Amino acid sequence: MDALLYWVGLVAVAVNALTGVMDSGRKQMDLIGALLVGVATALGGGTIRDLLLDRNVFWVVDQTYLIVALATGLLSFFAIRRRPLLPRLFLIPDAFGLALFTIIGTQIALQWHAPWLVASLMGVITGVVGGVLRDILCNDVPLVFLQGELYATAAWAGALALIGMQEIGISPVISAWAGMAIVLALRLLAMRYHLTLPALRPPTG
Amino acid sequence: MDALLYWVGLVAVAVNALTGVMDSGRKQMDLIGALLVGVATALGGGTIRDLLLDRNVFWVVDQTYLIVALATGLLSFFAIRRRPLLPRLFLIPDAFGLALFTIIGTQIALQWHAPWLVASLMGVITGVVGGVLRDILCNDVPLVFLQGELYATAAWAGALALIGMQEIGISPVISAWAGMAIVLALRLLAMRYHLTLPALRPPTG
Amino acid sequence: MDALLYWVGLVAVAVNALTGVMDSGRKQMDLIGALLVGVATALGGGTIRDLLLDRNVFWVVDQTYLIVALATGLLSFFAIRRRPLLPRLFLIPDAFGLALFTIIGTQIALQWHAPWLVASLMGVITGVVGGVLRDILCNDVPLVFLQGELYATAAWAGALALIGMQEIGISPVISAWAGMAIVLALRLLAMRYHLTLPALRPPTG
Repeated sequence: MDALLYWVGLVAVAVNALTGVMDSGRKQMDLIGALLVGVATALGGGTIRDLLLDRNVFWVVDQTYLIVALATGLLSFFAIRRRPLLPRLFLIPDAFGLALFTIIGTQIALQWHAPWLVASLMGVITGVVGGVLRDILCNDVPLVFLQGELYATAAWAGALALIGMQEIGISPVISAWAGMAIVLALRLLAMRYHLTLPALRPPTG
Repeated sequence: MDALLYWVGLVAVAVNALTGVMDSGRKQMDLIGALLVGVATALGGGTIRDLLLDRNVFWVVDQTYLIVALATGLLSFFAIRRRPLLPRLFLIPDAFGLALFTIIGTQIALQWHAPWLVASLMGVITGVVGGVLRDILCNDVPLVFLQGELYATAAWAGALALIGMQEIGISPVISAWAGMAIVLALRLLAMRYHLTLPALRPPTG
Repeated sequence: MDALLYWVGLVAVAVNALTGVMDSGRKQMDLIGALLVGVATALGGGTIRDLLLDRNVFWVVDQTYLIVALATGLLSFFAIRRRPLLPRLFLIPDAFGLALFTIIGTQIALQWHAPWLVASLMGVITGVVGGVLRDILCNDVPLVFLQGELYATAAWAGALALIGMQEIGISPVISAWAGMAIVLALRLLAMRYHLTLPALRPPTG
């Protein structure tokens, strides 16, 4: 189980690095700029979680994550230069990455004995802060805050479900898979049926 | 005294969460975006202070702060959706929040044996960084850096006054109240009489 | 050697504070805004490095750095108000600051037993994150990410060279000087001959 999570975690890092490099393409960044934005996108959420919990930062201890982020960034850069990629192609892997990062982040916070609401927020932070950093570095309003198709919402629901299930005695492994399924299902259904939360001001025009 | 500070601290968290949600309204954020910006505004300054001092992050240890920030954010969101609020109504509670956060931050840094100038900056950081995060997340130049009516300046003056008074032997409690009064008085007088600091380039037009 | 590095480090802090204040001039910031941006530019890179490595933040322990950053910021503010400075005048001292920050950051990470690729990234972070914070606080896309004349690239090459030389048995002192020379030479040559890395989209017009 742990070995599986480790490998899927590396895949999620790679997917996030790719979205960072894709986004940097809109801003005339050069190779090193794109790589650094890709690394920040891939590792940013878990980094903020580890700093807030006062843990060792995961990629400082095990540089495999950094190597995967850099290698994916490098490959993505030259692939995109040759032929631009359609962003919609990555929404499915990105949803898997969101689900996985959220559940890993929540589990780590629970093991650290964080209070339950804090633990759920750590899951959300692990899942979405990489993309928030990417958008700040590209000087955009973070996408995840704008009216969208249940991104942070799906993450939070899955994290709370995981915590609730563990609380009533369901095993951590089953709770984790169920939590991941909830994040993924909510996100995919929201994309399919354009489900949104209320916004303060409806989009005009 | 400590119990009083705790309760007033929760009020300051609530006021800051409200300003975060209000500000997110200008950017078509949805409920979750507004909540997350509200939480970042309410808890951001103290978080950065705790990370810099290598303390446990206050809201990770005691999730009451997070609950207050989320509940206020939720109420604010639906109140503002029903009827937009006039920003000027919140300048007075916001000035109280600034004074309180600044003095709490300075006291914590002094107890942590930070050098005096560092301690005063920790007060300023606790007081203003929440608003800086809010403006960065909303993709604006942080208001506190623009020519304004003595915001960070009032905080810094109060923090330095508190430290000076403790240094010459005045009791911590009296120094704290005096420091808070100085932040508040400077900020309110500056708003009333439009006091400003010099700027590098005067506003044009 | 250590004493020399300490003094040159203070000079690099001063140069970075100056560039922060200069940049804030484009945004109508007032004195306190310019000072805070100057401090963030001067101390930001080392702060992020120390947080990631879980070290005591350097300027919280020794407030000399903060005093130098504030004093330089204050002097710069009034000097620039009197007569605007030409940005190009600071590119040479800035290149020295980049080289020094990068090598100090890499050395600190190696002493902290960070893995080699992580250590090289800590050098880059120490060298460039101050400027990234400055640009975020001024609401610009960080300059260092845009197609430019080998800024982060020069830093990374020097950091990797230092690590490689230490690995094959060259003394830390000689490796440090050589690494610094590489950063400086690459950056100055790139400015002289307009060397750039490939970008995702060539600048138009």
